[in-house]
Amino acid sequence: MTEFFPAFLNDLLYDPEVAALIGTEADMNAMLTFEVALGEAAAKNRFIPQDHAYELAEKAGTFSPDLLSLQTATLKDGVVIPDYVRQLRAHVGGDAAKSVHFGATSQDVIDTALALKLRDVFDLFEARLTGVAALLEGLIGTFGAAEMPGRTRMQSAIPITAGDRIRVWRACVTQALEALDSVRRENLILSLAGAAGTAEKYGEKIGAVRDDLAHALGLTVPDYVPHAARGRVADLGNWLSRVSGALGKIGQDVALMAQNELGEIALSGGGASSAMPHKQNPVRAEVLVSLARFNATQVAALHQSLIHEQERSGAAWTLEWLALPQILNATGTSLKHAASLLSGIKRLGKAG
Amino acid sequence: MTEFFPAFLNDLLYDPEVAALIGTEADMNAMLTFEVALGEAAAKNRFIPQDHAYELAEKAGTFSPDLLSLQTATLKDGVVIPDYVRQLRAHVGGDAAKSVHFGATSQDVIDTALALKLRDVFDLFEARLTGVAALLEGLIGTFGAAEMPGRTRMQSAIPITAGDRIRVWRACVTQALEALDSVRRENLILSLAGAAGTAEKYGEKIGAVRDDLAHALGLTVPDYVPHAARGRVADLGNWLSRVSGALGKIGQDVALMAQNELGEIALSGGGASSAMPHKQNPVRAEVLVSLARFNATQVAALHQSLIHEQERSGAAWTLEWLALPQILNATGTSLKHAASLLSGIKRLGKAG
Amino acid sequence: MTEFFPAFLNDLLYDPEVAALIGTEADMNAMLTFEVALGEAAAKNRFIPQDHAYELAEKAGTFSPDLLSLQTATLKDGVVIPDYVRQLRAHVGGDAAKSVHFGATSQDVIDTALALKLRDVFDLFEARLTGVAALLEGLIGTFGAAEMPGRTRMQSAIPITAGDRIRVWRACVTQALEALDSVRRENLILSLAGAAGTAEKYGEKIGAVRDDLAHALGLTVPDYVPHAARGRVADLGNWLSRVSGALGKIGQDVALMAQNELGEIALSGGGASSAMPHKQNPVRAEVLVSLARFNATQVAALHQSLIHEQERSGAAWTLEWLALPQILNATGTSLKHAASLLSGIKRLGKAG
Amino acid sequence: MTEFFPAFLNDLLYDPEVAALIGTEADMNAMLTFEVALGEAAAKNRFIPQDHAYELAEKAGTFSPDLLSLQTATLKDGVVIPDYVRQLRAHVGGDAAKSVHFGATSQDVIDTALALKLRDVFDLFEARLTGVAALLEGLIGTFGAAEMPGRTRMQSAIPITAGDRIRVWRACVTQALEALDSVRRENLILSLAGAAGTAEKYGEKIGAVRDDLAHALGLTVPDYVPHAARGRVADLGNWLSRVSGALGKIGQDVALMAQNELGEIALSGGGASSAMPHKQNPVRAEVLVSLARFNATQVAALHQSLIHEQERSGAAWTLEWLALPQILNATGTSLKHAASLLSGIKRLGKAG
Repeated sequence: MTEFFPAFLNDLLYDPEVAALIGTEADMNAMLTFEVALGEAAAKNRFIPQDHAYELAEKAGTFSPDLLSLQTATLKDGVVIPDYVRQLRAHVGGDAAKSVHFGATSQDVIDTALALKLRDVFDLFEARLTGVAALLEGLIGTFGAAEMPGRTRMQSAIPITAGDRIRVWRACVTQALEALDSVRRENLILSLAGAAGTAEKYGEKIGAVRDDLAHALGLTVPDYVPHAARGRVADLGNWLSRVSGALGKIGQDVALMAQNELGEIALSGGGASSAMPHKQNPVRAEVLVSLARFNATQVAALHQSLIHEQERSGAAWTLEWLALPQILNATGTSLKHAASLLSGIKRLGKAG
Repeated sequence: MTEFFPAFLNDLLYDPEVAALIGTEADMNAMLTFEVALGEAAAKNRFIPQDHAYELAEKAGTFSPDLLSLQTATLKDGVVIPDYVRQLRAHVGGDAAKSVHFGATSQDVIDTALALKLRDVFDLFEARLTGVAALLEGLIGTFGAAEMPGRTRMQSAIPITAGDRIRVWRACVTQALEALDSVRRENLILSLAGAAGTAEKYGEKIGAVRDDLAHALGLTVPDYVPHAARGRVADLGNWLSRVSGALGKIGQDVALMAQNELGEIALSGGGASSAMPHKQNPVRAEVLVSLARFNATQVAALHQSLIHEQERSGAAWTLEWLALPQILNATGTSLKHAASLLSGIKRLGKAG
Repeated sequence: MTEFFPAFLNDLLYDPEVAALIGTEADMNAMLTFEVALGEAAAKNRFIPQDHAYELAEKAGTFSPDLLSLQTATLKDGVVIPDYVRQLRAHVGGDAAKSVHFGATSQDVIDTALALKLRDVFDLFEARLTGVAALLEGLIGTFGAAEMPGRTRMQSAIPITAGDRIRVWRACVTQALEALDSVRRENLILSLAGAAGTAEKYGEKIGAVRDDLAHALGLTVPDYVPHAARGRVADLGNWLSRVSGALGKIGQDVALMAQNELGEIALSGGGASSAMPHKQNPVRAEVLVSLARFNATQVAALHQSLIHEQERSGAAWTLEWLALPQILNATGTSLKHAASLLSGIKRLGKAG
Repeated sequence: MTEFFPAFLNDLLYDPEVAALIGTEADMNAMLTFEVALGEAAAKNRFIPQDHAYELAEKAGTFSPDLLSLQTATLKDGVVIPDYVRQLRAHVGGDAAKSVHFGATSQDVIDTALALKLRDVFDLFEARLTGVAALLEGLIGTFGAAEMPGRTRMQSAIPITAGDRIRVWRACVTQALEALDSVRRENLILSLAGAAGTAEKYGEKIGAVRDDLAHALGLTVPDYVPHAARGRVADLGNWLSRVSGALGKIGQDVALMAQNELGEIALSGGGASSAMPHKQNPVRAEVLVSLARFNATQVAALHQSLIHEQERSGAAWTLEWLALPQILNATGTSLKHAASLLSGIKRLGKAG
């Protein structure tokens, strides 16, 4: 897309690793993986000739879709798949062309491609969450015994240790980490249900086709038609916002601890001010709060998408496309900043 | 509270059963239950004399707090507990008075009381969700074979059966039902952590006290300090909005099916119009959409509350109090209407 | 409604003055005012006999609707008016009965009644905003010269005076006050458009009827059909949230200034803690933040309601009913607390 | 930024014209315009030597900032300006270097640059809104007399004409158009207030400097310190969402009219389906709904930003940066699609 953010915000508000996992190339790869594996499953179950599946698999290696055509067609069709399949068929050519995309609908490809991309995103986020948890563990080891006032309702309460506070941070992070299992289980699923969710082209053999296809893709077969039942996407948004919310709490606490009069934390790498060059700003801590509040807002959009009318809602589904990449990016950025922020803590508790 | 909704909306937008489970009396009971059981656990672990616990338990039966005093004090203190404990101590009297509320803080009482109230709410919602699922099962049995056009992007697609659509509705409902286990596990927990989350009054015996207290209350002991780690509340909001979202999808579908030209459903009890008395409006179907969109909005408030600074945030915690009862009420109302709506379906699919 | 909030929160989170202006009795009065004035305008323009209008006006004085019937009927009809008109007609009796509600539809009554109620609410809020602005002016006079560090990104910046900060608070408040004019203009309008927005019963004389009716009610006549064009309601929500947002900024600043190590403010009436009786909590300051974040969330619901399909959307309109009273209450409560908080400032700037 | 949306969505969900007005280059131009004009105003008022201002103005023509350095520094500083000013000073060189950015702070540059960019965006949106209003006017002329059933609560009501419905659409659009004046007035303002909002470097001459600078930039001088009083940004978000909400209502109505059984509209350019090539989907109509619901969600983020603590909040300000470009893009895209959709209407009302 033409960038509507200034490029200088790239490192502050964006996560190139997430972008690489969900952007154009990742999406193209995921869609092609689906179509090829679908061909194989359809052939194995005798819906298309085996050699059509071979031909598709072979030609796929050299398929390079015309992106501009996809872009134009997506405006017209509301979804990229009709033109994508047209191009893929043209590339495969011959009789095999018409076996491409057998029994599938646009939403099968898009939703399954999302699952394939999410799998990589979940791995990335799991690694980062684990890293953040380890950093917190390390901080407990290094600074855990430092005394500081507990603070409730913004007022000094009884004394606690830095460890007491960090253990709450860690609980927020590890709870999110534990909840990832369930989010993975819900979201790493195959969608293969055809034009109106009835898999009408596969009839009674749909079970076998789904099993084969899911196995090939490393996904599971849901026991429901996933087109219009979007609870898993709402849960995903909820989990992502829980992650950024956990980190936002840390960021808020750090920004408060870094206040000059409190001086309960020393950070490396604080940001400069154009008017006061000596000032050291807890930038990452603040940005963690921003990203958390941003995601807390976005999660509402995915919940609005639960009202997904009939067998497929263009309106509700497109709303997911608008919000979900934002949340994924914000969560990834948040994890990145949290690791940097925590790595840069040079002191916790009052200066000696 | 002085009602800021007109009373004539009571049946349309409110759920008296939910109100009874979370309103003043339920709250008073839950708080007293906590204080009495806390006394017993504290006595058993020798923090307070056993006879103080007995006395508290006995006097509790006749404790009737001065609500107006609580109300005034809550404005001043931001939380009801200081005045509540003061009143309870005065009621208990004598030496036992000072043993009341031993080692607890306001948030322990309020959060544990919430858990006790939620336990009942979850039972109610589980029963209602089960009822809705059974109604859907019944509709599949009765009307499942009726043919109708599948509809994608608001356009007629290939034919499906009414059963195909209802099975999607049922999947949304049963998924929410299955997810309740995890929400229960997360939320039906004891909070006992003291002034700043360190349970400083109980020291090394806090584990035993928590076990005893949780056992008495039928709750579990979390492995983290629950005061400032609010992920479970965000998850709760997410689940409640998933429930109303599932029902909102049903409502939206029904409202579309009930359009005159489509006539794919016949409902009993449609609403009248003041200008056109003959008109039959699918009121409950529409209200399911309203409640779902309302809850989708509210869930964002609970996610904002994840940024719960330091050991206790008055701001973030109070925000939960504003939003959570709304979501609980809207979800309950939604379940109530869904059951009525589905019970009133007289035909699904085209009129013969 | 059965209260789903515990009563002890009444003073902290509710505003009885707002409730009185928008609750059951206020609503009943506003609806009756509409119906009586409609009768007079319809009679003056010869749509109904003059003596029918007289009879309605006279009988209105003794009309006391059966609230339970209204409540039950509202569940069925989705709106109170069909039963309300039925009861009013029965009360008027005779030939005049059928002249009641001539040419109007439910939405005309409800939306106009809302305008009548909002007129009082706006007066109340204007007075309160003016009061808050005066308190801020007073604080500038008393404490404006006190020095304190400016703070940017949570860090001490160059010195400023308390007056510098309070002038920003005042700007937020006075801007909201100035914007009220436009919100009044938009929202204090008559709705009279009939069953489908075409005022079909009044034909070419609708202009005269509207002018007469609006004049009698002290409202203006919009140049558009107000049933499905809901921008004014979104603007209203935006304005209300701007008010609570302005006060939320003050609350956040005060809570930060009240931190023990900063000690930049002294407040009377700080709240107690159940665990630490000596602690003085800036309760109202925190609650201002909660109410602001709550309203910031709610405004999204009113914006979702902009998608108000066709000539009248039950779903979108009912969503307004769920959200708007919440926002009105939160804004009123916020204004009430802001005045108390500012009145209780005993010192601004560092203690001498 | 590395794209986190697949490129094929560019035409469906993005607006390159908006991106060009608010992206990297536009931002760089706006910031430089501010710095040059600031130099001139500072020189005119004798805060910096006149030849320094000349030199800055001259060298500005060849200033091409190192974007990668800006990006890295923005991560560290939380805002681009410290490094930007460092680079600009290095580029200007000599004694004049230290006169660059005199008396300004990061927020002055960023907020004023936003105003300069918004000026162009408002012009674009005004033109588009005017175009949409003209299209609606044209549709009233062409199809206004066509009869169709009015529809309330998703049910057929009394007959109306297509013109009756389109006039409501037009009212939503023209109201937004009229409200633009006030949004312009609020947002097209100069920010020049220095490190902590007190314009301490300019002292008593700040008024003259602001007047000169605002005049040069074609902006107005606000009567308040704009750093932490963010009501205008909330109002901006509200307005943008009102625009997309108005178009979302049109989109929802069109999608409903385009249902096969209703057939009340004929559209050119409907989208294809990968599974059912014959199907014509009202894609743009649905996407208008998606964009409206997306913006309705985002507006909440800008309202959360009203709680902008102290003299400058990194957290609240950065949240604006995350949300505002999204809303601007979605609104622009929505306007673009609305024009296409309305241009493609070939029939309104029932087919003859």
